[in-house]
Amino acid sequence: MGLAYRGDHYHGWQSQPSGRTVQDKLEAALGEFAAMPVSTMCAGRTDTGVHGLNQVVHFDTPLDRPEFSWIRGTNRYLPKDIAVQWCRPVPPHFHARNSARGRRYRYLLLESAVRPAIEIGGCGWVFRPLDGDAMRTGAATLIGEHDFSSFRSSECQALSPVKQMRRVSIQRHGAYWRFDFEASAFLHHMVRNIMGCLVAIGQGSRPATWMSEVLAARSRDAAAPTFAPEGLYFVGPVYDADFGLPDKTAAMDWLP
Amino acid sequence: MGLAYRGDHYHGWQSQPSGRTVQDKLEAALGEFAAMPVSTMCAGRTDTGVHGLNQVVHFDTPLDRPEFSWIRGTNRYLPKDIAVQWCRPVPPHFHARNSARGRRYRYLLLESAVRPAIEIGGCGWVFRPLDGDAMRTGAATLIGEHDFSSFRSSECQALSPVKQMRRVSIQRHGAYWRFDFEASAFLHHMVRNIMGCLVAIGQGSRPATWMSEVLAARSRDAAAPTFAPEGLYFVGPVYDADFGLPDKTAAMDWLP
Repeated sequence: MGLAYRGDHYHGWQSQPSGRTVQDKLEAALGEFAAMPVSTMCAGRTDTGVHGLNQVVHFDTPLDRPEFSWIRGTNRYLPKDIAVQWCRPVPPHFHARNSARGRRYRYLLLESAVRPAIEIGGCGWVFRPLDGDAMRTGAATLIGEHDFSSFRSSECQALSPVKQMRRVSIQRHGAYWRFDFEASAFLHHMVRNIMGCLVAIGQGSRPATWMSEVLAARSRDAAAPTFAPEGLYFVGPVYDADFGLPDKTAAMDWLP
Repeated sequence: MGLAYRGDHYHGWQSQPSGRTVQDKLEAALGEFAAMPVSTMCAGRTDTGVHGLNQVVHFDTPLDRPEFSWIRGTNRYLPKDIAVQWCRPVPPHFHARNSARGRRYRYLLLESAVRPAIEIGGCGWVFRPLDGDAMRTGAATLIGEHDFSSFRSSECQALSPVKQMRRVSIQRHGAYWRFDFEASAFLHHMVRNIMGCLVAIGQGSRPATWMSEVLAARSRDAAAPTFAPEGLYFVGPVYDADFGLPDKTAAMDWLP
């Protein structure tokens, strides 16, 4: 299943006793539709305030229903800010997390002297102008396989801090900046910590060459503070084309 | 002053005893900043759930402060989903409503088999495909000076149902349709009632020629039901360039 959701009103993806997480809402809805408990595994856990464009989950079920019946039936029991976008049967060896060969994240950032209102909860905000070329130079340092410990939160549960960054794209659309990241996998808070450094470079408080120093330090103390979660979107996982899973949802056209 | 706001959590623009309107929040914030009561007049009242991109208000004040002080000072007391975007001194003959030579509205509509989640509250939704050419043909009928009684709610307080429609533009951006309207002024519910008719035409349940029949009937009974408010944005008023007022806010780059 692919899901789109706003993260504003949830304590992140992963199930908690409070029940106020996206996974809790999804499993409650699936349980209502299937009339039996359903446990899900997701492609990438998101934090409080972080949104999902094409979060993918897998689950086992004895229930045989048409794809659209799963979509509409589950959406009936989901809150308005969470919606199943697609559903497909997968072979037994498919695993939403372990089969993912990569993940994509996007960060939207408003550059404006005045704070946002219309796009509240859906973008970050800086009031000082950003230098795109400086940020691109700094970001280029991150491409390739590196130990990303400097961008890793102390709560990170990943087995290794070594990940492969495949792409960082920085584009401007009017007052909005769009940062696209693709990597083999991401450490906890990795994109938000990278964003903190890119903004420091973009605003001129650090030179573009600082990014390589931060990366080489392999210490969280070397990097900028963790940037705000509101502008962060988990675009989705990347799977082998053989699985035939959609990698785009309508919501991607909504973002600048 | 120009304001941007999300309409989801307010009972429209106009002040009410409940205090849960955008005008109430603005006047409370202005009152805090100015340390005296401030009464405002707006360019175009919006309904519950309708958003403002460049709502303009004027007010009289003896307080002499720099423009940016008004902006930042007022925003400090406003909720997160309302923000002053600009502020300018105007000549005494300026009137936010009466000086407006036109108004612009935008409607965003998701065409998708599955309901929205990410863009919740910020767009309308249809699950059946829309025919853009048919809608454009129907919309062309509206251009010019007409009696728009068929699209007028029974609660409308306008003196005359005759308005001049100057432009209707219908564009597609991925899964989203953007409808732009510019007229001398709009009657209550006029855009949402026109949207109901355009969607009926776009989905093929009515022919494109039906729009001229609805217009000619001059009766609310002739038109389609009022369409959902969530996708409606008051883009802003149009003033003589002599006033030198901004007609764009950053939020306009946010929309598809």
